[in-house]
Amino acid sequence: MMPLLARYFPPLDWGRRYTTVTLTSDVMAAVIVTIMLIPQSLAYALLAGLPPEAGIYASIVPIILYALFGTSRALAVGPVAVVSLMTAAAVGQVAEAGSMGYAAAALTLALLSGAMLLALGLLRLGFIANFLSHPVIAGFITASGILIATSQLKHILGVPAGGHTLIEMLGALAAHLDAVNWPTLVIGVLATGFLFWVRKGLKPLLQRAGLRPRTADLLAKTGPVAAVAVSTLAVWLLGLDGGGVAIVGAVPQGLPPLTMPDLSPDLVSALLLPAALISVIGFVESVSVAQTLAAKRRQRIDPDQELIGLGAANLGAAFTGGYPVTGGFARSVVNFDAGAETPAAGAFTAVGLAIAALALTPLIFFLPKAVLAATIIVAVLSLVDFSILRKSWGYSKADFAAVLATILLTLGLGVEAGVSAGVLLSIGLHLYKTSRPHVAEVGLVPGTHHFRNVLRHRVRTNPAVLTLRVDESLYFANARFLEDMILDRVAEDCPIKHVVLMCPAVNEIDFSALESLEAINERLRSIGIKLHLSEVKGPVMDRLKRSHFLDQLTGEVFLSQYDAWETLVLQKKDDTPHARATA
Amino acid sequence: MMPLLARYFPPLDWGRRYTTVTLTSDVMAAVIVTIMLIPQSLAYALLAGLPPEAGIYASIVPIILYALFGTSRALAVGPVAVVSLMTAAAVGQVAEAGSMGYAAAALTLALLSGAMLLALGLLRLGFIANFLSHPVIAGFITASGILIATSQLKHILGVPAGGHTLIEMLGALAAHLDAVNWPTLVIGVLATGFLFWVRKGLKPLLQRAGLRPRTADLLAKTGPVAAVAVSTLAVWLLGLDGGGVAIVGAVPQGLPPLTMPDLSPDLVSALLLPAALISVIGFVESVSVAQTLAAKRRQRIDPDQELIGLGAANLGAAFTGGYPVTGGFARSVVNFDAGAETPAAGAFTAVGLAIAALALTPLIFFLPKAVLAATIIVAVLSLVDFSILRKSWGYSKADFAAVLATILLTLGLGVEAGVSAGVLLSIGLHLYKTSRPHVAEVGLVPGTHHFRNVLRHRVRTNPAVLTLRVDESLYFANARFLEDMILDRVAEDCPIKHVVLMCPAVNEIDFSALESLEAINERLRSIGIKLHLSEVKGPVMDRLKRSHFLDQLTGEVFLSQYDAWETLVLQKKDDTPHARATA
Repeated sequence: MMPLLARYFPPLDWGRRYTTVTLTSDVMAAVIVTIMLIPQSLAYALLAGLPPEAGIYASIVPIILYALFGTSRALAVGPVAVVSLMTAAAVGQVAEAGSMGYAAAALTLALLSGAMLLALGLLRLGFIANFLSHPVIAGFITASGILIATSQLKHILGVPAGGHTLIEMLGALAAHLDAVNWPTLVIGVLATGFLFWVRKGLKPLLQRAGLRPRTADLLAKTGPVAAVAVSTLAVWLLGLDGGGVAIVGAVPQGLPPLTMPDLSPDLVSALLLPAALISVIGFVESVSVAQTLAAKRRQRIDPDQELIGLGAANLGAAFTGGYPVTGGFARSVVNFDAGAETPAAGAFTAVGLAIAALALTPLIFFLPKAVLAATIIVAVLSLVDFSILRKSWGYSKADFAAVLATILLTLGLGVEAGVSAGVLLSIGLHLYKTSRPHVAEVGLVPGTHHFRNVLRHRVRTNPAVLTLRVDESLYFANARFLEDMILDRVAEDCPIKHVVLMCPAVNEIDFSALESLEAINERLRSIGIKLHLSEVKGPVMDRLKRSHFLDQLTGEVFLSQYDAWETLVLQKKDDTPHARATA
Repeated sequence: MMPLLARYFPPLDWGRRYTTVTLTSDVMAAVIVTIMLIPQSLAYALLAGLPPEAGIYASIVPIILYALFGTSRALAVGPVAVVSLMTAAAVGQVAEAGSMGYAAAALTLALLSGAMLLALGLLRLGFIANFLSHPVIAGFITASGILIATSQLKHILGVPAGGHTLIEMLGALAAHLDAVNWPTLVIGVLATGFLFWVRKGLKPLLQRAGLRPRTADLLAKTGPVAAVAVSTLAVWLLGLDGGGVAIVGAVPQGLPPLTMPDLSPDLVSALLLPAALISVIGFVESVSVAQTLAAKRRQRIDPDQELIGLGAANLGAAFTGGYPVTGGFARSVVNFDAGAETPAAGAFTAVGLAIAALALTPLIFFLPKAVLAATIIVAVLSLVDFSILRKSWGYSKADFAAVLATILLTLGLGVEAGVSAGVLLSIGLHLYKTSRPHVAEVGLVPGTHHFRNVLRHRVRTNPAVLTLRVDESLYFANARFLEDMILDRVAEDCPIKHVVLMCPAVNEIDFSALESLEAINERLRSIGIKLHLSEVKGPVMDRLKRSHFLDQLTGEVFLSQYDAWETLVLQKKDDTPHARATA
């Protein structure tokens, strides 16, 4: 058992084993991640509708706080695409883009999200992330990727446009097609093409040039920095900003400011639901990245402590001019591949970004926004994966319905409606499926003690004894189904004198199901039929003994179904005049 | 298979077998139910905050429509206590009690509720009522009984007071205690005492006087009519209304009017959620009464057709001056005991009530409201049953939590918050329970082919082979739990080379769980461990075959766990240098 303090403060654990070798690996990884994060942070801030520095700020203090409280050795925390989009959608509902209120609302959103994550972590309620099923997440990420890429087209075209759903965005773009800025479009298309080529073509080229695969891979990741440098130079030298090319402009030089989120009740209540959705989505994404990387080194992460780490990171973002953050896939993989061994790598990355914020912001004055948009488009298109539709269709229609609904609603109504509908639909479909459990009427396989489905096997049955095998735990959602089914079944079949419920697959009987069993027992009693149970599992039996059900039960509880057959059919044949064995 | 038209229009079924004997039984039952319903309908209208005639109107056309479309032979549809309380809570939020808008909003509520019930019935979605667990319903009914009884105290005390939660009501009563009307209080207390005595003492007395138990029982049910008659006469003769005793006053004479519900968008959107809750609560109550009575005669009801019947009844109420209705327990039992054989008994009851509405309303001019309140109090206190708390505590803490939360929130925040919280909590607790399935590490019982929990039995295991038996279906809520558990388990135990998942109790693997299995397989592969499955059920195996999982699986699928043991431990002992059998 880990000591309490070390559980809540992981550096006490890994810090004891920190060596100069670990230090060297961590610093190396930090340099590479920093270079990759500078354009990415600027771009995601643009996506969230915030000034570029917000992206840098959101990567400094949050990374350090996650390093102190998180359990993953390689997770890199900061702005990510989907959460940036969700921030834009949430904040856009309460404030005008570009206004003072907009940035303040983003801080409030980070604060609420941080507080929720922290509370869930301290209460050890990480399991609620499980309510997001994999297909819903996959559908949501795919739809978000499309929304994000579409939202960036305005920067590539150099037109003003907005909207939070696919239709709104396309409509706004179409309305401005006559105002396309051609220099911007040229820069945007060139940058997008270059970045795609970097992804697909640069690595093989570098390998053919003699570099080792890992080095080639990491070098290819710096492609966006090259695009940023070249395009900034081009705009500056050619004076393209005079020709209408939107540039990043003046970014304040300095460390992250201390900021105070706006806590007015109206704003807080308007942002509660978005904050909850951002928290859960961010947590699910982050944990799955952290688990994938931890498993590769046989390390473990603690999901509840991860909530605390992400909560602290978001609170940090709220008070230092950032916006909601989470563990990003791309940056964490780069961090891991570059050799990060402890969360200290994150802290060194934060130092790198702080230096950038202090010294490098004048260099990006002439950086065209179209290039940042290109970075985003290229990054998010790798998230778009419609194969989930085909795969889930082949496997389960219910899962397919959940994916399709999530994708369509996310595209059509926006991120919040999409993910909410997906969660509700998953839970609803699960309850629906388990609300109609498989119940088989069974009979004795001649010459054995086994009982099988009468519809699939040639078995012996007895007209006075109805034996039903229930293949599901009994709980409130299916309790009434069982009641209906049994009563319907006996209503149409008069010779029945005994009903046996065979329960080998019943893992639980909740209080609703207990009351249903009592009702079934009572109603069967009123028409002269006895209810029996067989093969009840130990824990279920223990629980039934705590109720009065077994006292009221008109029949018996048989250890095995064959005992029931022997007692009800073979021995008591004379009591039940209609009884006769049939094939 | 029943013909389609007969399914949706049940009189085609029972009407063919209608005889004069059935007619006599039905008319007899109708007379008794009519006498019982007159004071009850007036009282429930008072509870709903509506004029008394609304209660009568709500019992006429709805009964006839239910008789045409419902499937229960004995269910009596009309105003009931809990739905009347919910109506008061819902309509009170959008209109002033006693105003024109109030009665109009009640019509809208009936229309929405009717439309929802009808839609659910036509879409055959009756299963959604299952989401209300028995403990939640029991807690809700008990808390509602207390709220209803408390709400009537103002009529007994003769003071003006309001409120929709227990605290509001008690506060309002306390504020008016100095204004108690003493004649009203005397009438109210006498009537309440008399009605309690009628319930408990009159039936034995009548039996001792030589009446048969059933006749005595039915006669005792007419006690409220006696209270109404005597108190009305007393007020009239003594001129008590001049002394401040609130009376029913002028009730319009005539058949139910044709009314048009208000469909303004604001009103409709404000009443949507209340209408949904009223529909579900009403449906659940009604179906459970109908099932209890149908089972006694080995008849069956069709829950989806019941939705259509109740939907039609509520639409009828909306267009004829009523308010939301459902099948009532007390009236249905009386109807059944009085010998009703077909829904035609309901139609005859409607005729009786129509005659009352046409001719008898002047007779109740002097009826004191305190007597109606006494009828309600005596009726609803039989609903209050705190034993559900004790019973659920003994059986399951999760169910207890759901009951307690429902009771406290219903009393403290009102009916809508109470029932919503109960439903959400039930679903949440169920998902929580199944999100942490029981997983046992198993080993071979020496000398057998059986595998048992290593913690409970002396079994043989092998350090290179980890065998886990999963006692739950695998779906999104527990998929990640399994992932975490297995990866944690192997992270701390290095000699493991094979993980076997034993699946005899896995009834389903959904797409999320499939992806988790793929992730587990992939992560185990990356650290050199093979994943195997054993004892997979047929339908689960069929589904797995439709995915690529089995192609990617690093290990094998064994028919029995003993096969897995033979292959991995007995035959391959040489491949795994660390392998040794341990006790």
